[in-house]
Amino acid sequence: MDITNEQIRVPSDQMKAEFFRILLRLGFSTERAYKCAEIFMVNSLEGVSSHGVNRFPRFVKNIREGYIKPEGMPSLIHRTGAIEQWNGNLGPGPLNAIFATDRAMKVAGENGIGLVSLANTNHWMRGGTYGWQAARKGFVLICWTNTCPNMPAWGAKDPRLGNNPFIIAVPYHNEAIVLDFAMSQFSYGKLETFRNEGRKLPFMGGFNADNELTDDPGEILDSWRPLPAGYWKGSGLSLLLDILAAVISGGFSTHQISTCVSESNISQVFIAIQLRSLHNFPAIEMSIDQIISDLHKSVPDSETSKIRYPGENVINIKNENLKNGIPVIREIWEKIVNL
Amino acid sequence: MDITNEQIRVPSDQMKAEFFRILLRLGFSTERAYKCAEIFMVNSLEGVSSHGVNRFPRFVKNIREGYIKPEGMPSLIHRTGAIEQWNGNLGPGPLNAIFATDRAMKVAGENGIGLVSLANTNHWMRGGTYGWQAARKGFVLICWTNTCPNMPAWGAKDPRLGNNPFIIAVPYHNEAIVLDFAMSQFSYGKLETFRNEGRKLPFMGGFNADNELTDDPGEILDSWRPLPAGYWKGSGLSLLLDILAAVISGGFSTHQISTCVSESNISQVFIAIQLRSLHNFPAIEMSIDQIISDLHKSVPDSETSKIRYPGENVINIKNENLKNGIPVIREIWEKIVNL
Repeated sequence: MDITNEQIRVPSDQMKAEFFRILLRLGFSTERAYKCAEIFMVNSLEGVSSHGVNRFPRFVKNIREGYIKPEGMPSLIHRTGAIEQWNGNLGPGPLNAIFATDRAMKVAGENGIGLVSLANTNHWMRGGTYGWQAARKGFVLICWTNTCPNMPAWGAKDPRLGNNPFIIAVPYHNEAIVLDFAMSQFSYGKLETFRNEGRKLPFMGGFNADNELTDDPGEILDSWRPLPAGYWKGSGLSLLLDILAAVISGGFSTHQISTCVSESNISQVFIAIQLRSLHNFPAIEMSIDQIISDLHKSVPDSETSKIRYPGENVINIKNENLKNGIPVIREIWEKIVNL
Repeated sequence: MDITNEQIRVPSDQMKAEFFRILLRLGFSTERAYKCAEIFMVNSLEGVSSHGVNRFPRFVKNIREGYIKPEGMPSLIHRTGAIEQWNGNLGPGPLNAIFATDRAMKVAGENGIGLVSLANTNHWMRGGTYGWQAARKGFVLICWTNTCPNMPAWGAKDPRLGNNPFIIAVPYHNEAIVLDFAMSQFSYGKLETFRNEGRKLPFMGGFNADNELTDDPGEILDSWRPLPAGYWKGSGLSLLLDILAAVISGGFSTHQISTCVSESNISQVFIAIQLRSLHNFPAIEMSIDQIISDLHKSVPDSETSKIRYPGENVINIKNENLKNGIPVIREIWEKIVNL
């Protein structure tokens, strides 16, 4: 399957306008429709279409099915010191997460560090979105979400853990260094992309129905047995992130999010740290510069290897797509235009 | 090499007494010698001899060389809200880390969450120690350290990242669930253990001098090219943990800790969360029980697979070693007795 023949380029403004139109019709207020449309557009613009334009039809479906409440807003359950526990009231995941990140920054502005949890929220799409949001304002953000059971524990056959994306973001010259990774070696979004493009994975990515390791993305999408990143390490981190998300929010844990169809009622944690409140604040930018400069001095292990920091390539992708339009599979775009 | 012939069993009290005797002679106060001896003994008792008895001679050597100051105590640099930044003043890593964990719990007791950073500290030995310390008192602990450069970035040949162990601990029935992992697929301690026992690694663990993946622990110990856990994921997480450790403490980053001989002047972060301050506190134990119970229902992928939570086996190892003595390589123990 030659995907390049099937792709078109959609200008970012046109994409946002299309999302905005559809969300308004689904019952979003103007302001919320605009914000949500922007998130889906920017995710696509920055190269994460799996959680942008490609996912938009499913987002609309989940709203129509009632899993996502367009006007569901977070409500405060409990505040203590530098911690706030909120109920997401099944609002749209991206809007809830934007809100929680803002709150975490507000609390961190008062206490140096701030923790905000969300129970009963929905899929936040691309976790990195919130990392960029906080880092561009001068905050470190550490956040994570649980998911439905979509990955077996290390040594197990049946998916009982989530792939629970984990994000760490640090301000960097008005932009950010953003690590955003799922606990499986390849996220479902990546597996779908490889399958759609008819490509094998660069490494073994999971088990097939015959209990054998495979680099075939389709076999893993069928078996629901992706390999945890770092084997027992990703498996352990997934478990702990789920425990923390459920315990700190008072919301559901992965085993309670029994269906991956809607993946509703998930739990999230956002920890912000205000760099300006640290004694060494004036030296921080230089310190990060030196770390990145040292990283870039690495000797590549092959002619094709590039040594980059997480998020380094985002600005390039964004600029290219701003200029040429956002690449979208024609079929997906036509589906959206007809929503 | 048949290691069982070389091992002896040393009663835990005898081991602690020996450490205590040596530390007193090195200039530790009674109280600090006792605490430090206990940490090295308990790490060994709980199965982490690589950062207990096996490492003790090197700890003594680093003290004699002046890298570790027996009476170096943390001093407060800056306090703001729920954050405290401390200077470790090159004190013994385990004592500094115990102190920082206590402070993080104290701050969390007042603010729900507390962050304590340490600049200019020394190797903390086993990070899990501090996880157990906090979790047994009802706190979640998230902590990490940077290290000297001992792992190449993904796609690179030369070690510029640290393997920066990362710990998450959660209280569990007066004990704890403790995840404690280095960013390399196999820690240096594990590589040494496999090499000493003449065993191959269960998976490819790094590159040899010929730029090829290898499961030979000795080749990786020689090349200093362990594989990051989860390839680019462990590499990215290592970088971000180092940036955060350096930035939040105002201390050195991995590239500044240029020598792995002493691995001095390292930076650490401790974040404690007081569970009792959460609105859902009464339901937390049951919630964790359910998560663990669901995990244990996993279907093993082979007859030999055991699905455990991180730290599950520690209690068994501890009880066995309490009963039979702590296994030690005879040569190492004789070296210690003659210190």
